Amino acid sequence: MDLSIHSPLLRSSPSLSPCPFNSKNTTLNPVFHSLNFDSRNFQRKLLVSRQNQRIRAQVSDQIVNDHGFVLEDVPHLTNFLPDLPSYPNPLQKSQAYAIVKKTFVSSEDAVAQNIVIQKDTPRGVHFRRAGPREKVYFKSDEVRACIVTCGGLCPGINTVIREIVCGLNYMYGVDNILGIEGGYRGFYSRNTTTLTPKVVNDIHKRGGTFLCTSRGGHDTNKIVDNIQDRGINQVYIIGGDGTQRGAALIYKEVEKRGLPIAVAGIPKTIDNDIAVIDKSFGFDTAVEEAQRAINAAHVEAESVENGVGIVKLMGRYSGFIAMFATLASRDVDCCLIPESPFYLEEGAGQEYVAQNMPGVDEKDASGNRLLLDIGLWLTQKIKDHFSEVRKMTINMKYIDPTYMIRAIPSNASDNIYCTLLAQSAVHGAMAGYTGFTVGPVNSKHAYIPIAHVTEATKKVKLTDRMWARLLASTNQPSFLNRSDNS
Amino acid sequence: MDLSIHSPLLRSSPSLSPCPFNSKNTTLNPVFHSLNFDSRNFQRKLLVSRQNQRIRAQVSDQIVNDHGFVLEDVPHLTNFLPDLPSYPNPLQKSQAYAIVKKTFVSSEDAVAQNIVIQKDTPRGVHFRRAGPREKVYFKSDEVRACIVTCGGLCPGINTVIREIVCGLNYMYGVDNILGIEGGYRGFYSRNTTTLTPKVVNDIHKRGGTFLCTSRGGHDTNKIVDNIQDRGINQVYIIGGDGTQRGAALIYKEVEKRGLPIAVAGIPKTIDNDIAVIDKSFGFDTAVEEAQRAINAAHVEAESVENGVGIVKLMGRYSGFIAMFATLASRDVDCCLIPESPFYLEEGAGQEYVAQNMPGVDEKDASGNRLLLDIGLWLTQKIKDHFSEVRKMTINMKYIDPTYMIRAIPSNASDNIYCTLLAQSAVHGAMAGYTGFTVGPVNSKHAYIPIAHVTEATKKVKLTDRMWARLLASTNQPSFLNRSDNS
Amino acid sequence: MDLSIHSPLLRSSPSLSPCPFNSKNTTLNPVFHSLNFDSRNFQRKLLVSRQNQRIRAQVSDQIVNDHGFVLEDVPHLTNFLPDLPSYPNPLQKSQAYAIVKKTFVSSEDAVAQNIVIQKDTPRGVHFRRAGPREKVYFKSDEVRACIVTCGGLCPGINTVIREIVCGLNYMYGVDNILGIEGGYRGFYSRNTTTLTPKVVNDIHKRGGTFLCTSRGGHDTNKIVDNIQDRGINQVYIIGGDGTQRGAALIYKEVEKRGLPIAVAGIPKTIDNDIAVIDKSFGFDTAVEEAQRAINAAHVEAESVENGVGIVKLMGRYSGFIAMFATLASRDVDCCLIPESPFYLEEGAGQEYVAQNMPGVDEKDASGNRLLLDIGLWLTQKIKDHFSEVRKMTINMKYIDPTYMIRAIPSNASDNIYCTLLAQSAVHGAMAGYTGFTVGPVNSKHAYIPIAHVTEATKKVKLTDRMWARLLASTNQPSFLNRSDNS
Amino acid sequence: MDLSIHSPLLRSSPSLSPCPFNSKNTTLNPVFHSLNFDSRNFQRKLLVSRQNQRIRAQVSDQIVNDHGFVLEDVPHLTNFLPDLPSYPNPLQKSQAYAIVKKTFVSSEDAVAQNIVIQKDTPRGVHFRRAGPREKVYFKSDEVRACIVTCGGLCPGINTVIREIVCGLNYMYGVDNILGIEGGYRGFYSRNTTTLTPKVVNDIHKRGGTFLCTSRGGHDTNKIVDNIQDRGINQVYIIGGDGTQRGAALIYKEVEKRGLPIAVAGIPKTIDNDIAVIDKSFGFDTAVEEAQRAINAAHVEAESVENGVGIVKLMGRYSGFIAMFATLASRDVDCCLIPESPFYLEEGAGQEYVAQNMPGVDEKDASGNRLLLDIGLWLTQKIKDHFSEVRKMTINMKYIDPTYMIRAIPSNASDNIYCTLLAQSAVHGAMAGYTGFTVGPVNSKHAYIPIAHVTEATKKVKLTDRMWARLLASTNQPSFLNRSDNS
Repeated sequence: MDLSIHSPLLRSSPSLSPCPFNSKNTTLNPVFHSLNFDSRNFQRKLLVSRQNQRIRAQVSDQIVNDHGFVLEDVPHLTNFLPDLPSYPNPLQKSQAYAIVKKTFVSSEDAVAQNIVIQKDTPRGVHFRRAGPREKVYFKSDEVRACIVTCGGLCPGINTVIREIVCGLNYMYGVDNILGIEGGYRGFYSRNTTTLTPKVVNDIHKRGGTFLCTSRGGHDTNKIVDNIQDRGINQVYIIGGDGTQRGAALIYKEVEKRGLPIAVAGIPKTIDNDIAVIDKSFGFDTAVEEAQRAINAAHVEAESVENGVGIVKLMGRYSGFIAMFATLASRDVDCCLIPESPFYLEEGAGQEYVAQNMPGVDEKDASGNRLLLDIGLWLTQKIKDHFSEVRKMTINMKYIDPTYMIRAIPSNASDNIYCTLLAQSAVHGAMAGYTGFTVGPVNSKHAYIPIAHVTEATKKVKLTDRMWARLLASTNQPSFLNRSDNS
Repeated sequence: MDLSIHSPLLRSSPSLSPCPFNSKNTTLNPVFHSLNFDSRNFQRKLLVSRQNQRIRAQVSDQIVNDHGFVLEDVPHLTNFLPDLPSYPNPLQKSQAYAIVKKTFVSSEDAVAQNIVIQKDTPRGVHFRRAGPREKVYFKSDEVRACIVTCGGLCPGINTVIREIVCGLNYMYGVDNILGIEGGYRGFYSRNTTTLTPKVVNDIHKRGGTFLCTSRGGHDTNKIVDNIQDRGINQVYIIGGDGTQRGAALIYKEVEKRGLPIAVAGIPKTIDNDIAVIDKSFGFDTAVEEAQRAINAAHVEAESVENGVGIVKLMGRYSGFIAMFATLASRDVDCCLIPESPFYLEEGAGQEYVAQNMPGVDEKDASGNRLLLDIGLWLTQKIKDHFSEVRKMTINMKYIDPTYMIRAIPSNASDNIYCTLLAQSAVHGAMAGYTGFTVGPVNSKHAYIPIAHVTEATKKVKLTDRMWARLLASTNQPSFLNRSDNS
Repeated sequence: MDLSIHSPLLRSSPSLSPCPFNSKNTTLNPVFHSLNFDSRNFQRKLLVSRQNQRIRAQVSDQIVNDHGFVLEDVPHLTNFLPDLPSYPNPLQKSQAYAIVKKTFVSSEDAVAQNIVIQKDTPRGVHFRRAGPREKVYFKSDEVRACIVTCGGLCPGINTVIREIVCGLNYMYGVDNILGIEGGYRGFYSRNTTTLTPKVVNDIHKRGGTFLCTSRGGHDTNKIVDNIQDRGINQVYIIGGDGTQRGAALIYKEVEKRGLPIAVAGIPKTIDNDIAVIDKSFGFDTAVEEAQRAINAAHVEAESVENGVGIVKLMGRYSGFIAMFATLASRDVDCCLIPESPFYLEEGAGQEYVAQNMPGVDEKDASGNRLLLDIGLWLTQKIKDHFSEVRKMTINMKYIDPTYMIRAIPSNASDNIYCTLLAQSAVHGAMAGYTGFTVGPVNSKHAYIPIAHVTEATKKVKLTDRMWARLLASTNQPSFLNRSDNS
Repeated sequence: MDLSIHSPLLRSSPSLSPCPFNSKNTTLNPVFHSLNFDSRNFQRKLLVSRQNQRIRAQVSDQIVNDHGFVLEDVPHLTNFLPDLPSYPNPLQKSQAYAIVKKTFVSSEDAVAQNIVIQKDTPRGVHFRRAGPREKVYFKSDEVRACIVTCGGLCPGINTVIREIVCGLNYMYGVDNILGIEGGYRGFYSRNTTTLTPKVVNDIHKRGGTFLCTSRGGHDTNKIVDNIQDRGINQVYIIGGDGTQRGAALIYKEVEKRGLPIAVAGIPKTIDNDIAVIDKSFGFDTAVEEAQRAINAAHVEAESVENGVGIVKLMGRYSGFIAMFATLASRDVDCCLIPESPFYLEEGAGQEYVAQNMPGVDEKDASGNRLLLDIGLWLTQKIKDHFSEVRKMTINMKYIDPTYMIRAIPSNASDNIYCTLLAQSAVHGAMAGYTGFTVGPVNSKHAYIPIAHVTEATKKVKLTDRMWARLLASTNQPSFLNRSDNS
């Protein structure tokens, strides 16, 4: 293989060329992470699912209005249980809420998705505003809630758990809350944990998840059987898009069986790649913590001759952490993200990184999958380029801070965010909404149909202003031809 | 004086009553700060100014639309210099921006202020979207910009300075940037600092302001004389509402003299009490750092019998830091803010704290103003109450972390925010806007007339949901009668 | 009063004189704290007690040797219970210790106090080396230990508690450990806490003391009655010199009653003012945390014209924290400590600060003791001086980080240190030593008679090299005449 | 290969056996690092060099005394330049030092190496106490000093640089200080940096080395030629044992040429593996920072079923960081260090890890040396064991925080330590000592012959008490037979 670094990379860091030692500028800290090798196919898939979604939405949940006002509504228990009784919201008697003028969110309130408009733009898509409703569909002493956490770690999971428990208890007087341990699999286990405000009192000060987690293990029927057997009527599911898809299946099965069970999803992904919502919890903390790794790479690169620091950040399919961490730091010279394909050498065949690297997800039998790590691979390729083509030795330092980032407790800003998410979920479930997820849309918390957040992954748009801001600040090439952008 | 603690305070912390030692619950950590003693008068003043503003807006800047669409526009140099030539934006040649589909913000784009709506709500107020325009009204090599910082410290000032410099230089090729030192007063000084990307390269890693600051010292005519003398044609002013009022005066004088000078304000207040915009820079960092003080108070209170910890946080007139710091922590039992008057004892006359405390702003000749600090004063009153009325000794620890909070460097999230603010200001000034300030409205950056952000101070609304969330989480009384709320 | 700042202070910070603004050097950050007003009397008292001690030592505990070797020994239960049976140390069966060559400390091993010597210097004072002995004087299942924490907070108390519990349990198989809550007073309370490794597992990650604390409340007879009643035979007392004096009284009373009870003291003071031992636990953490306050003062002082930052650090009688924090930082221009008297103006009478300030320990009836805070007082005096004498306004920022420092958890280095202290105490008590305290002497852990650490407070020696190093690094005057030094 | 985990490992973590999920105890966080595969040979080599050393010492530098007092002296310029003139120490005129009683260290003062003694133990080895001498052998205005940093990064290098510069300048009035850039190689470069207190003022707040560094490149003759050419007469060399060996060669060559040049070494190694001295600078900071990685591994392991966290810490040949980091944390179940060989399965041949792993230092031609990383290798082996032998899947998280640890700035405690090191080096060189290194011996700073710190690497003694303390706290097996210990 005769790969080597393509000149654009070098144009962005001209000091990488053999240079007298005293120049302290020989720093290149690409902040990057795993790449998206097949973006075209993926895009197509996305388009398809988008179409499906629109059809579904029009048929069942969408309320289209005269002036272009569209409400993407979430399901309600009364959709399939029209006779479900309702009760006054106990918050009406709460001292804290009683005084608030608009304690209760009007059933008409909606949050606009598109808010950068021109005067004649149609009003477009809106979501139900999150918050307490005047009527609830559960008596406090009849609520039996459960919480489950699935997928990888992310700062703030414990805060969400804590605040669901405290929200149910303090605001609605609910005493009966179970923790399902170890992800979806935990539904099949004999044991659960009893969750009380006292038990969860300090858990937000620790990273990880108090309820343990796992990947996969979703069997819709077994889970719903188990929910029924345990007499659970509110299910809070914290997890990424796979998990939320599972939550949608649970909701569908619950609806099919005609059970008065509310299913609420709290979207979790440290990568911030969830569609519709402004950002996912833990993201702020991750960007903050990533600064440590970037600073270390910067110091290492500056302290030696021909030093190069490489930091691999999270986001298998989307580069938000890398992009924001780069913008927050000022020491990064080049930021590579999955959304932006790049090539290492402008040769005859314009070989992209994708064609020259074994797939990240493959493993060979002997288990040496570690070589396939994009960070290690790129590190080697850059070294090779310099030693073979440039006949110079570079001093490369590679840092993978993934676990050190995702295992820390959430910072203050994420703690507040997690609290709002949890309270919104609790208000929604108590109000009889189901099959919904919660999150801020243009900084206002809203209820969003689960399908909206699972059918497409949010990605960094290379043709958008935030990426342009990054490019302006690092001065790296765009790695994108005008022809790619059509 | 026969003041003592009013029962509501105690109802919120029943364990303060004499209790056997082993109860670990004797914690009371009011997070509070200086009080608003004269809210009624102040309110009236506000209403008046609001009216003025509306009138002004309708007359000069507001564009009212058929369907309720209102654009609160910002002034433009061509308003009073109709023949000012324009040039193509140099970003059109930038590799980073060239690829971006929508490099330039359309002159029609507006950001909606009210986004929680019902289907028939009028569209309401909008602001011009911030961002680069296709045309600029300055040639790069003719720009002579200056930056000044006024008022108290706040995390992130240095990042804003750095990014104005880098933004002007990297995006628009501007080389001629002056730092005015020591606030408005610096305009009269002989010396200025030359600002280049190299000079400001690392300043965002330090707290404080690289350009020094001071309060007051504003003399519009002298300042504009000085601006003229130095040949400055872009003025970037970083400061709080007093400073922004000064910026508006400078803009007015510049307009009166008919000078082609753009005046841009970047609103700064650690208290987050700036109207219209989502939050002010440094606020996130302050809330994060306040956790240290709250944690310390919590540990102190829990480690002794009858322990009480009190933390005074910033915000002379608005309690955002206290409210958010309380929500982020989970260790606060009572949060007092200026917006919420409270009384210490329910006596005959319902004496509020206001009538029983010497004014915070007065100083006696001998300089013992220190006693008047609301935190020290309240600490003493609570001690007195317990020793005199309850005949018990409480162990009170008072923490004032103000300087330790405001002097730290900004965190990652504020760094990104400051970068966006700075870039927006630069794009706006280059595009010929003037007399404007920048900030996110519902998370979208916009240009806002300076008057909007100075005519009223943003305050915590006691009748709004965020305060209710806080009350729900601390379980403290609302200190507010229904009769107060009309 | 016509006090003003004495010139030496100004010589050390010449830039405080009216200066053009651009000089960034107008920083003065005195790190200081409360003063020692009566050092001469105190010294005399010290000499007296030293003599007493020597006499006592010679009579009872001191073993004088031919070549100047002196062992300052600690009491042993067999001193007054000569027939107490002993047992083989259970560590002999421990896998971890079994392999260690010198598992057990020889009864002859001693740690030298004076190790900077000349070849003919007499060997001088030694202390028993801490560590496990071959024989113990308690059967594991007969041990009933208790732990009590007294006095103010200090980082690391929880680690000491944790490691006494884990040490007793893991190394010696002891299951019966009580927590006495709320200081000495807790002995009279009905309740105690049961301490197990599981209960204390995470407490070292929190500041404060898990067992609560209080000041005073010591009644020797009641305490020993209570110890007897509960069947306690090992008493671990964590506290400052007052507390250790109490521990000595308990030991004396136990000896008088002829009880087989070991009394071990673990010296605690954040100020590092304990004699004999190298440093006290929590000190490292305190010095580290103090950097935040110093940095904040530095930023505040540098960001305004004529800025002065003042930080008050802990140490009522000794200035170790201030001295080390100053050495660790490089941003302090003047460090004042109690050991070094200073005067504010060289007037007729050479008035020292002592004569011109109301006593720190006095309180007036109306409780406005707060004015007497040395930091606030000095702040006011310096302001007055500049406004009255120099006719200039200085911008002074005063920070008191006391609670924020002492309430944090211990850092890694203190955690290790606390572990070693706790293990040494456990080994000592098991081996039958009593009336002893533990601590490192020249970095080797030793058993020290309690009287040694209580009879004199360690102070910064102004005539020693460490203080000279500080003076060299701040370039401040010594505030000390040659005549003072005799 | 039929390797699998040896039972001792499992005995130490019995919960690794297939266990019901709810047990939260399935944590195994071996903190380990690269192994010592050939300890026997290495030991032998050590013994030889020790013998050589003793002989050398007796002949040239050692002063043996009647009562066993031995002084391991350092060379002095007058050894080979007997007529070198001396001057009064300028500190005699310093205000700071003038007041200090014992400003100057007596030429007789020595620091004892062995301080845990019995009454008849011979006095043993001593080193010259560090500190200012009454006479110096350089005139301040004739000093031309240089500083060079070599080898890997370590927290605190910048503080040492800063304090040598400030020490020379403030204490001795030296103005002429050069920075040699990029390690030994920098001596051959045309460029040097001029170092002044102003230039180095803030460098201690950054990680890395201000002077850049490199490995190797030592050519004694070229370096001494260069030193002569530049007129340098004080050489400060900061680096590890290889570097110090180089410093010894420089000193020898300087002596051979009869030049009046002082050569001072400041020992640097983050691993703390330097003989004689208490600990190396940066070590404290490294142990502190390692806690982040351990915490992350702990959270990851506790948040999933069958979770195992592995952290690789620094120390290729000695495990001090791992040992102290384990003692400081309380979340480690097993700590493996190079000094303690371990085997993965107790098979017929007692195969040690050494025989089954490709050498760490070998690289294959294709550059896939990364697989040979001990951490990755062990991770794979443990996974294999569980999947093949136990038929269970474990969830393993591997963290390598090396660069994130070594690139941070030094903490307060290391800052103080670095200051003392630098000042000692400066005092020593000014006093005419050469071929020496500095460091604390039993917490007293001393001058040590370079050979002492380079001839043997300090290692964790498995038969000593600190390792026993670790074993007691983790409860892991000792991996050592009594037969190994002879």
